[in-house]
Formats: sequence, C-alpha cells, structure tokens
Amino acid sequence: MKKLINKPEDVVVEELQGIALAHPDLVKVHFDPNYIVRADAPVKGKVGIISGGGSGHEPMHGGFVGKGMLDAACPGAVFTSPTPDQMLEATKAVDGGKGVLHIVKNYTGDVMNFEMAADLARAEGIEVESVLVDDDVAVQDSLWTAGRRGVGLTVVLEKIVGAAAEAGYSLKEVAELGRKINSLGRTMGMALTSCTVPHAGKPTFDLPEDEMEIGIGIHGEPGRKRMKLQPVDEIVEMLMEPILKDIPYKAGDEVILFVNGLGGTPLIEQYLVFRKAHEICEKNGIKVVRNLIGPYITSLEMAGTSITLLKVDEEMLKLWDAPVLTPGLRWGI
Amino acid sequence: MKKLINKPEDVVVEELQGIALAHPDLVKVHFDPNYIVRADAPVKGKVGIISGGGSGHEPMHGGFVGKGMLDAACPGAVFTSPTPDQMLEATKAVDGGKGVLHIVKNYTGDVMNFEMAADLARAEGIEVESVLVDDDVAVQDSLWTAGRRGVGLTVVLEKIVGAAAEAGYSLKEVAELGRKINSLGRTMGMALTSCTVPHAGKPTFDLPEDEMEIGIGIHGEPGRKRMKLQPVDEIVEMLMEPILKDIPYKAGDEVILFVNGLGGTPLIEQYLVFRKAHEICEKNGIKVVRNLIGPYITSLEMAGTSITLLKVDEEMLKLWDAPVLTPGLRWGI
Repeated sequence: MKKLINKPEDVVVEELQGIALAHPDLVKVHFDPNYIVRADAPVKGKVGIISGGGSGHEPMHGGFVGKGMLDAACPGAVFTSPTPDQMLEATKAVDGGKGVLHIVKNYTGDVMNFEMAADLARAEGIEVESVLVDDDVAVQDSLWTAGRRGVGLTVVLEKIVGAAAEAGYSLKEVAELGRKINSLGRTMGMALTSCTVPHAGKPTFDLPEDEMEIGIGIHGEPGRKRMKLQPVDEIVEMLMEPILKDIPYKAGDEVILFVNGLGGTPLIEQYLVFRKAHEICEKNGIKVVRNLIGPYITSLEMAGTSITLLKVDEEMLKLWDAPVLTPGLRWGI
Repeated sequence: MKKLINKPEDVVVEELQGIALAHPDLVKVHFDPNYIVRADAPVKGKVGIISGGGSGHEPMHGGFVGKGMLDAACPGAVFTSPTPDQMLEATKAVDGGKGVLHIVKNYTGDVMNFEMAADLARAEGIEVESVLVDDDVAVQDSLWTAGRRGVGLTVVLEKIVGAAAEAGYSLKEVAELGRKINSLGRTMGMALTSCTVPHAGKPTFDLPEDEMEIGIGIHGEPGRKRMKLQPVDEIVEMLMEPILKDIPYKAGDEVILFVNGLGGTPLIEQYLVFRKAHEICEKNGIKVVRNLIGPYITSLEMAGTSITLLKVDEEMLKLWDAPVLTPGLRWGI
C-alpha cells in the first residue's frame, strides 16, 4: 500500500488536524466526537444544514462546510458511517433556533445513524428534518445499500440547499427543496482502478489492466458490468444513456452538468468526459446552463469518473449562483 | 495504459474543446495555434500576463486564465514545450498597449521557445519581458533543464503577478515583482508512482511497490534518491529540510505554504502533508500566513506531493488576497 500517511488508524484525526490548521477562518474542528462546523456556528435564525458519511470522499463533506453550504459535517472512519453521537453533537452545535436539516446519502449505516441522531436531537427539543440522496442509476440494492446509492448529486444538492438556508428558507422549505433536487438529479460512475482503504491495506477489488467497471459505487461497490476499456467517448455514452432515460430528461430541459473525478483521474481527462457529456446533452436538446468539473466526491485514489445531471428551474439556478465560501468550493465572495 | 481518452494524439485538442464548452464566461480558446485567452482579452491599459508549457499539469496553466491571473496560456503536447508561434499569437492577443510578461518555467524547450516568441513580438512592436521560474531545490541540471526546474512556485507567482497586473502595475514592475517572488520561493516534491504519457503508452519510470522517489520532477525527471516508503511525517521532513535551508527561511519570516497533489494523491493525504509542513514551519518560528492545498500543478495521474514555501511581504500578501476568477482558482469575486 502506497500512501502518504502515518498509521492507518490516525488518518482521519490527522486529516482533521490539517483542516483545522489550514482553514481557521472558515471552520472549527471538534474532536471526540469528530465534526467540522462553520467558524461562526451556530448562525442565529438560520436553518442548520448538516451532512456526513465515511471519510475518503474529500473534499466532500468536510470541505463543504462554510458560508452558503454546510453548517457542519461528520466524518466517519474511511468508508465507514459516522456515529449517532457525532451527528447529535453537530446538530446541537449548529442549531440557530430554526431547526436542522440532515442530508443523508442512502447507505444503510448512514441512514440508521442519522435517524437515531435525529430522534435524540428531537428529544432535546431541536426540530430536525432529513433529506435522503439516492441518485445513482447504476444499480439497486448494492453492497451497503437498500435501493439506490447516494453519490454525485450530493455535492450539488448541498450547494443549493445550503444557499437556501443562507437566504432564510424555513426548515420545511429547505427539506422540500432538497427532496425536489433529489427527484430531479441522477448520476452514474465508472472506474479504471480500485482504491485501497488504509486499514485494509490492499485494493478493494481487482480489475485487470485492460478492463473497466461501469456503474461502480464510490466505495468500490459492484457496478453493472465489467468490460474491456473503451475510448472515453463510448464510456460517456454508456454513462449518459441510463441517466437520460431515467427521469427521463427531455428536450427543453435545463441542467447543471457535474463531471466528477474519483480521485486518481487527471483533470485533463475530466475535461474530455465533460466535452462528450455536453455534446450528448446538446444532441438531445438538453441545455447545459451551469457546470462543475473536478474531484469533489472522490473514492480515495480511484481512477474513474461520474456524471451527474440535475434538471433545474430558476429558483435552483439562483441558489446555485449564490455566494459560497468553503475550503472545497468557493465563488461569489 | 488506462486512461479516459480517445486517441492519444487528440487529447490536448479535445481537452481544449472541453474547456471552451465549460467556461465561455471566463475564457476563449483559440485553435491552431492553440492558446487560451481571457474572454475579455486584450484588456486595454493592462500589462498582459502569459504562461505556458507542456500539457498534463492541469489546472496549470490553462486553468489559471481569467480575471486577476493569466491573460493567456499556451499548452504544448503532454509534457512537451509549446511552440513559438503559439506564444507569439497569444502575446499579440493579450497586448493591451502596456506590454506583455512571459512567465517561463525553467525547461530548455520552454526557455528557448519563449525567447524566440519574445523576439518576434518585439519585432512587431510589442514590449515583452520574461520571468524565469526555477524554484525546485531538489536537483541541478536535470533531464530537460540547465539549472533548477520550475515547479510549484509557478502557481503562486502567477496568482500574485496576475493580481499586480490587474492592479495597474507597469511591465517593468510586474517583471521585477516576478523575479523577487522567484528569489523568495522554493519547492521540493516526491512521488509514490510514475505517470503514463498518453503517446508513450507506458509508465515514464518504474518504482517498486515499496519505494518512493524524493525530489522528483513534474515530468518524472529523476530526483535525489529512491528509498523505502516512509511515514508521511518523515517524508515531509525530508522535503522541508532542503527547502528551509536553501534561502534560508528563518524565524520571523511570514510565508505562503502551498501543498500540492501531483494528480493521483487523494486530498485526505494532502492535508496530512500540510499538517506536518505547518508544524515544521511553526517549530522554526516561521509563520504560515496563507496556504493553498490541492492539485494545482499535476503530473497526470502521478501519486505524490510537492511543498512550496514563499516568503511574503505586505505587498505580496495583498496581491495574493486580491480577487481571482479563473476555472482553476477563484476567490473574492
């Protein structure tokens, strides 16, 4: 295993120490239980927005804490759900009196622990709503998931819902907006290589030198099929086809197109993915009105990509364009 | 070779097509010769700032074209110098009447071609100055270089000099500032793995599964030594020691600390590198007043990192903080 780490068991805490040293103007890091909160949390009179999940997907979620996006993030061990006590403490830390929204990716452990934390928080008098993200069209009932997995859409949803909270939306309104976004967004990914979880010490799966996996999950969960490596244009066709026909997206739709690198894929290749995905949208009469390109929801050093489409309306676009100031995403400020 | 590409010979043009589709609000892409310019170029009354070099280091340089940074970037083939005609056309495209600065990383081909382009531009009546970046403390006279290589400092220099041009500095002033930054900044890198240049089709070098290379160049040029993999804290010690004693940096200095991912290294690991580098600075009485963490000057999918220190004064800090709006770096706008 080749990694820039000390001991596998110290990776997450040392990462959090690095984040605390790097971004004291934006976030505070709380240890034991571990969570990252906005430097100015709790923000009075604003709905608190929280997410979390296993580490190893950086910058998601900790890198999205700050003005205009998340109020807190709860990092679990690598590829392992955070615990209810992390979520409960984070919920209390960001409650500004208007309630707290939990954004939960659809993995069994995440869902169960966030539910428990929500119950505990309610018992302490904090109003909590949850939004489940399950945008991955690749498979149903994968490893660790009942139903569809929550993947790339999470980044886009956190940005838009975070902006809504910043703009003064109520808890009920941000939750409804989050559910609407989840209903209008779809993602599919693929991998060229596996990644290696530090405490496992060896690759999560083996993939022959001339093969790729279509529909892979962000923890290396099985996808739809393995096949010989193809040119990127054909790979993008294979990802876009199930996405487009899922909702379905149709001519006249306006979308945000998000091309994501899984951690080990150079930016140069992500632009090639974007180029073809954009072409396919245009060919189908779908207008790409905004885009995001880069490694925002990663799987450690996995080589691969995912494509996310979100059908947007004027309200969502305005919130997407609103200022955001976090370690991992910033514009307009 | 596992890459998300079509034909190796089309990678750069298709990347540029992707950039053109993604960022029409920020940049325009010119083909044949290939260069990327600010959407509003030439900016009247402003010094034009140009850089360039082989592709494969994205987001550098094309991702840094925009308000507050570069006016144009000339991408060569992967790891191959751009040609004088690219540089000449880019120079003409950004000349707003106050002259043009070329920022040149110290590689033989880049230096020679930028010199030729400068001569040609001068013959057409455009005033041109050049700043050479040679910040890599690892080795002298490496493959493709006489003297030291230009690496991570380039990103920081382009940001600060770009802000200076935006603030109305003259050509002579931006050139002097660039040379001063080069004299105060130092970098050293290391690799865990090689990368594969698309048209080569196989890794640039072999590195056994339990070894790393200290002092590697951004094209995989030989470094100082190969050795067994060490914990990240010890690796960072090995990088920081030659950097600190080179200028030397001393107690009381204020620095920008830039931790860079080489393309295949997860962000989680870059924060571990930052954590230790920050600790070493503090231990030596050196104050980290700003930082940058992420994959900004990459070597395709190489796993590894580089650390850059720049000793700053008040003027440089103010320019660092100034607004920048490019595909790869944005804040304050």
